[in-house]
Amino acid sequence: MALTHFDGKGDAHMVDVSDKPSTARTAVAAGWVRMRPETLTMITEGTAKKGDVAGVARLAGIMGAKKTSELIPLCHPLPITKASIEITADPDLPGLRIEATVKTGGQTGVEMEALTAVATAALTIYDMVKAADKAMEIGGIHLLLKEGGKSGRYQAE
Amino acid sequence: MALTHFDGKGDAHMVDVSDKPSTARTAVAAGWVRMRPETLTMITEGTAKKGDVAGVARLAGIMGAKKTSELIPLCHPLPITKASIEITADPDLPGLRIEATVKTGGQTGVEMEALTAVATAALTIYDMVKAADKAMEIGGIHLLLKEGGKSGRYQAE
Amino acid sequence: MALTHFDGKGDAHMVDVSDKPSTARTAVAAGWVRMRPETLTMITEGTAKKGDVAGVARLAGIMGAKKTSELIPLCHPLPITKASIEITADPDLPGLRIEATVKTGGQTGVEMEALTAVATAALTIYDMVKAADKAMEIGGIHLLLKEGGKSGRYQAE
Amino acid sequence: MALTHFDGKGDAHMVDVSDKPSTARTAVAAGWVRMRPETLTMITEGTAKKGDVAGVARLAGIMGAKKTSELIPLCHPLPITKASIEITADPDLPGLRIEATVKTGGQTGVEMEALTAVATAALTIYDMVKAADKAMEIGGIHLLLKEGGKSGRYQAE
Amino acid sequence: MALTHFDGKGDAHMVDVSDKPSTARTAVAAGWVRMRPETLTMITEGTAKKGDVAGVARLAGIMGAKKTSELIPLCHPLPITKASIEITADPDLPGLRIEATVKTGGQTGVEMEALTAVATAALTIYDMVKAADKAMEIGGIHLLLKEGGKSGRYQAE
Amino acid sequence: MALTHFDGKGDAHMVDVSDKPSTARTAVAAGWVRMRPETLTMITEGTAKKGDVAGVARLAGIMGAKKTSELIPLCHPLPITKASIEITADPDLPGLRIEATVKTGGQTGVEMEALTAVATAALTIYDMVKAADKAMEIGGIHLLLKEGGKSGRYQAE
Repeated sequence: MALTHFDGKGDAHMVDVSDKPSTARTAVAAGWVRMRPETLTMITEGTAKKGDVAGVARLAGIMGAKKTSELIPLCHPLPITKASIEITADPDLPGLRIEATVKTGGQTGVEMEALTAVATAALTIYDMVKAADKAMEIGGIHLLLKEGGKSGRYQAE
Repeated sequence: MALTHFDGKGDAHMVDVSDKPSTARTAVAAGWVRMRPETLTMITEGTAKKGDVAGVARLAGIMGAKKTSELIPLCHPLPITKASIEITADPDLPGLRIEATVKTGGQTGVEMEALTAVATAALTIYDMVKAADKAMEIGGIHLLLKEGGKSGRYQAE
Repeated sequence: MALTHFDGKGDAHMVDVSDKPSTARTAVAAGWVRMRPETLTMITEGTAKKGDVAGVARLAGIMGAKKTSELIPLCHPLPITKASIEITADPDLPGLRIEATVKTGGQTGVEMEALTAVATAALTIYDMVKAADKAMEIGGIHLLLKEGGKSGRYQAE
Repeated sequence: MALTHFDGKGDAHMVDVSDKPSTARTAVAAGWVRMRPETLTMITEGTAKKGDVAGVARLAGIMGAKKTSELIPLCHPLPITKASIEITADPDLPGLRIEATVKTGGQTGVEMEALTAVATAALTIYDMVKAADKAMEIGGIHLLLKEGGKSGRYQAE
Repeated sequence: MALTHFDGKGDAHMVDVSDKPSTARTAVAAGWVRMRPETLTMITEGTAKKGDVAGVARLAGIMGAKKTSELIPLCHPLPITKASIEITADPDLPGLRIEATVKTGGQTGVEMEALTAVATAALTIYDMVKAADKAMEIGGIHLLLKEGGKSGRYQAE
Repeated sequence: MALTHFDGKGDAHMVDVSDKPSTARTAVAAGWVRMRPETLTMITEGTAKKGDVAGVARLAGIMGAKKTSELIPLCHPLPITKASIEITADPDLPGLRIEATVKTGGQTGVEMEALTAVATAALTIYDMVKAADKAMEIGGIHLLLKEGGKSGRYQAE
């Protein structure tokens, strides 16, 4: 099997999707930011009282999804038709879990948009909380679901 | 302790760093992309013969570092004076390990730039290899080192 | 009535327009920059002789329309098919009046593109003239016309 | 008096600020979005319960400030050291009032950054509420205060 | 014959392509970077051993193609469906020859995208080699081929 | 001699300029767009009467200079303190000659900013005139002058 982002000579290129039909496509990705329990408490209390970390991160993630083709060199620009981000506190992690859903009507999938949304939201959480906890870790970023397009449905096990 | 990115009323703002001196600052961050062993083999053989995944990801990471203040809502724009990315194959992961070093001479640290470089490089690796392996996971993104500035040196344990 | 940019839990999201058809859409917006009469004279004489304020502002407005989905967090990226800006001197204001027309063939309207074009042109006028007159005011920015799409035609009274 | 953004031949250029010292500079700008009373009620109730219009607009304004030199053709890029936005409901307008404060340590002022922050926040408010009220008007955008730099302090009357 | 990018009054505008059908369109452009023979040798040896100038320039060109509508004021944003760049050493120039191919399914051609890709790749080559040779020249940038759309096929003689 | 944009292993990186002092730096670059004599006539008559090609291209060039570090992967972001562009008709070319001057007070030179300004202005000229003449050629892009910084003055022969 070959890597499609390289041509026959091994040069990177943006794959030709000209002949692929524009179909409805959805991708869902997830990830998390792990932190000390007291950092999580500060955030969850803050959401109610003194600053909405998750609200800022959600917006950053949505805007990050729109920047995907600028950030990822060989990504095609796609007309995103929906982007939403869920952020939930998980005391067992402990930390915040992020899930992003992105849709398009374009010629190639929006996996990268969903993954970029998650990564941008996670980085934004780190940024907002780093004065209190520099040891946070961002992880678990993976694709949950991909629908639409010729290659069919993919669902993470 | 309070979250510095919110003011007294809980509104998000870009923290005032006007009175902080411009000093030499360095940050180093790390992360990885975990994949199936055969996917890693395809990449490492490809580096030599048929397409340089790590080369593309390194560039994407460096360019991503320059986009940090566009991506992270409350980040200050900083004049980056150095950015470099190491990507190494780790058969035990199995996958690719990423380490980014960023320097500036500005009024606040470059942790976010280093972390954003790692995340962007990781997303780029995912993009280039996803036709072969959609189940890859991006993780382990954390700050290794932060030097310069009033808050002093931070080194991950 | 609910605000569509928030989901059932009150979280901001980019509204799903996946199922809306791509139709021809037009939006026209207007606004103005009010200034001292002698500032307006300087500009209108300058257009002929010593620097074309309106020409620079028109271009900035057109380029601003293309940046709308980067600036407005929950805006969908749209393939703009036409953008034009009229700038006319109004001695009774006194100042410059701006009118922007934007078209697309996408799944949602271009009101925000037209309004952003007007605002960007107005800010550019302020920038070019501010050395002479810092007390200028930007105002009257509103939607004149919106055509196409399911919600039908809107025309300002 | 001449317009500084044009050279002797009337050609637009980015003014040479190379010989100006880097000093602490502040600018404060204001503006508003006028709407129907019931639209304002929907927003102010939403802030508590079902979606934070002002929170999204504040972030958009801060990010807009960072985009100023991309939007305004002859603006110098400046290292913003602080950006904050206040949004308050004014039932007498009726509508939302916006005030932006921006600081830098650069060679030219941040008036355009403060004005761009206000305009971007206002456009974002329009975007989020437009499904309920298309007749909203953005206005009153003007400079309240400018401090630092050779030209001295400016305060709106 | 008139210049289409200006309206009847001579004001620059983005031409209305709303009524043009979306068809498959291709453009190919070329250009070169001329340098001293020993500079070329350094690059071609470097490709194998110590740094891949052409690889970096290819990526920059592809990403540049995606930025075309941001750089060229009156360009329409287009959904690029393919972008690839060939860079070959020409000892007779002496220097590197660049050829870019871009495709879209949009309402107007991708000539500017192909030309911008070539120019960006050429500038990137200059940047990477300038420490060794500041006298390099970028030239020969022209359109080789344009296909699709009403105005028909164009091929450089 | 080695290429500075690659490290000891041949990996591309952004060169460390942390220890270089911030000094006044200037760069001047030139280039041209060659066209049929009648195309040039259309432009030069248009400047007076029906559309200012050079005015649009000048602005695009200035804005392009500000985008240099986004376009050129390993370029450092620099605080540009001046940018100006001269465009003159040359009937002997025949075509338009472009000259860009850029200044900064940063830690590395602005050659790339001046060259990018020229290339962007040239591409913009091509875009505005291409409906009349697709065979235009962009060439002669080279550095005329570089001043400031440790490596000293460079002047093209």
